[in-house]
Amino acid sequence: MKNNSEEIKKKAIALHRHYCGKLEVSSAAPIKDMEALSLFYTPGVAAVSSLVAKDKKLAKELTWKGRSVAVVSDGSAVLGLGNIGPLGALPVMEGKCVIFKEFSGVDAVPLVLDTQDAEKIIEIVKAIAPGFGGINLEDISAPRCFEIEERLKKELDIPVMHDDQHGTAIVVLAALTNALKVVKKKIEKIKIVISGAGPAGVAVAKLLLKAGAKNILVLDSKGIISSKRKDLIPYKKKLAAITRVNISGGLEEAIKGADVFIGLSRGNLLSVEDVKKMAPLSIIFAMANPVPEIMPDTAMRAGAKIVATGRSDFPNQINNSLIFPGVFRGALDNKVRKITDDMKLKAAHNLAGLVKKPRKDKILPTMFEKGVVKAVARAIK
Amino acid sequence: MKNNSEEIKKKAIALHRHYCGKLEVSSAAPIKDMEALSLFYTPGVAAVSSLVAKDKKLAKELTWKGRSVAVVSDGSAVLGLGNIGPLGALPVMEGKCVIFKEFSGVDAVPLVLDTQDAEKIIEIVKAIAPGFGGINLEDISAPRCFEIEERLKKELDIPVMHDDQHGTAIVVLAALTNALKVVKKKIEKIKIVISGAGPAGVAVAKLLLKAGAKNILVLDSKGIISSKRKDLIPYKKKLAAITRVNISGGLEEAIKGADVFIGLSRGNLLSVEDVKKMAPLSIIFAMANPVPEIMPDTAMRAGAKIVATGRSDFPNQINNSLIFPGVFRGALDNKVRKITDDMKLKAAHNLAGLVKKPRKDKILPTMFEKGVVKAVARAIK
Repeated sequence: MKNNSEEIKKKAIALHRHYCGKLEVSSAAPIKDMEALSLFYTPGVAAVSSLVAKDKKLAKELTWKGRSVAVVSDGSAVLGLGNIGPLGALPVMEGKCVIFKEFSGVDAVPLVLDTQDAEKIIEIVKAIAPGFGGINLEDISAPRCFEIEERLKKELDIPVMHDDQHGTAIVVLAALTNALKVVKKKIEKIKIVISGAGPAGVAVAKLLLKAGAKNILVLDSKGIISSKRKDLIPYKKKLAAITRVNISGGLEEAIKGADVFIGLSRGNLLSVEDVKKMAPLSIIFAMANPVPEIMPDTAMRAGAKIVATGRSDFPNQINNSLIFPGVFRGALDNKVRKITDDMKLKAAHNLAGLVKKPRKDKILPTMFEKGVVKAVARAIK
Repeated sequence: MKNNSEEIKKKAIALHRHYCGKLEVSSAAPIKDMEALSLFYTPGVAAVSSLVAKDKKLAKELTWKGRSVAVVSDGSAVLGLGNIGPLGALPVMEGKCVIFKEFSGVDAVPLVLDTQDAEKIIEIVKAIAPGFGGINLEDISAPRCFEIEERLKKELDIPVMHDDQHGTAIVVLAALTNALKVVKKKIEKIKIVISGAGPAGVAVAKLLLKAGAKNILVLDSKGIISSKRKDLIPYKKKLAAITRVNISGGLEEAIKGADVFIGLSRGNLLSVEDVKKMAPLSIIFAMANPVPEIMPDTAMRAGAKIVATGRSDFPNQINNSLIFPGVFRGALDNKVRKITDDMKLKAAHNLAGLVKKPRKDKILPTMFEKGVVKAVARAIK
């Protein structure tokens, strides 16, 4: 394991050095002569600019606004790395933009911001929005991410999605849908424990409730998020209200009899003893990166029926990359201004549906399977 | 003429509709399998992010910051179209980015801003700066453009250039250098009239002074910019001081005995009578777009020796596109943080030097001639 990951690190650094990053821009057509130049640039472009200035809707047809997305991060919550700032975040954002293009054809641009002030981020994103067809917020820490997304959704006329929240929620729901088919349980009747009350944990809880779940316990580092807790900041207080939880305790209490554990927290958090306390045919999504809440083989030996992680080197990878390219492809193609809960439920349903016969080691398609982007995009309309 | 320009308009609009704009992003290498994904994205990218977060200088080697430029405009002074706002400006900025890539390999991204407040523009550009290796300011009106550029040059550690000012100044100096060779005059001894005291006029005047010119009259719509004028806003007052002009009058007075007329103002401003008042072997750069200050054939018939315009459909096109790709190519390759006056003089000198034997109808190379970008880039170090 260690050697393999050391090798990946070395290779990744060498590759980034070779290409000086990995994202490029290019012209839709080569500029070979003066005539091409006169059409793509002056004097021809003046006619296009005049037209767009007069009828702003035409921007989606005559400029790249019809197919471009800004991937915006302040670097405050990057992967498993935390608050590493805009430059540290840039390789991840470039990577997302590469995935956007390679898998869905969306032209995405990384914008890493040298501020972590919510008001300023809102102002900046609003200011740069005219040039883009959508805004993908990325790796922005809670609680600022909630306000930033809410405000931008309200104040902009293009789709805005914080991928850490909704990309994660959609892919988790898709994975859970198929896992439940394998163990023949119904979402309405199961007990779900979510470890981690950051952007992902909150969004997953909310979407699972929308999908019919009735019994969800979300935990932060201090225990179960409950109306009994007196130390909760506002967004966690709201979460306690919508999950209707009023019991106290930590993971040890929460995990008893749980059908599903969803880890969006930190490595090695879940013990063999915890898994043993779960209900029969238990499902574990250990999604902390790079070290999961419990290693898959350990969890299986402890009695889990289905284990998934965020990693590509184990079966059942649960990764947002299955979602965000399709969401923005659909939003751009169908001129969708708001990504609604119904669209998210539909997207999860469509993605799950691509696996015709879910098995314990095959609950999701990989990104390289045909139809992933289309299935998700079809839901966004 | 009219039919031709109508045809260009139609073709340009059709082309923009066909491609939905013209700028695309792409991956430096295809993502064909899980291994590629694990190197360009998670988990491999985490090693790159950690490294860059620790040693920020590495961003220029491991991310596209080493080769990317943001082309920023508020749409307040677009081509000959004026204040048409961010969406109207977008086709022009996309076009500039296409030229950047096609001619110099620089990866440029258009950012059109939904604000024309100088302080906000400064704040926004500073915030997005970490993700780019340079900032090309574009089509921002005076006087805000001066403060915005000055402040950003001071407060950022990457090169910042307002192309309307310095791109124009460099290409005009290059053109003038060769035109003076043709008519065998020295820049120190000639009288130069510049019509237009916007960003371009001011920058051209300043660079020509640096190049040795002693006698420059700049005119705005009210006449000669002179210390006698009581109506001057601050930047024009400064200009009067550095050109050391204290005479009054309009174009009619200014043009008498002038060796060179540089038009950066509006179409059909210069009359046959004006040209007749100029010194023998007169040089006219009629650069207003799309209609020049005087049509080339009219100017020639009136006695001008050399005429140049901003247009590609006449001989002697003077266009910034000869400059900005090379300036940023050089700045990125040579890790230059400030574009100095000496670099600009050198860039003009190098560009002029590409025309081995200047003639009255050949004072500049075209963009498609070999060595243009390299000649300019060589000066930026």
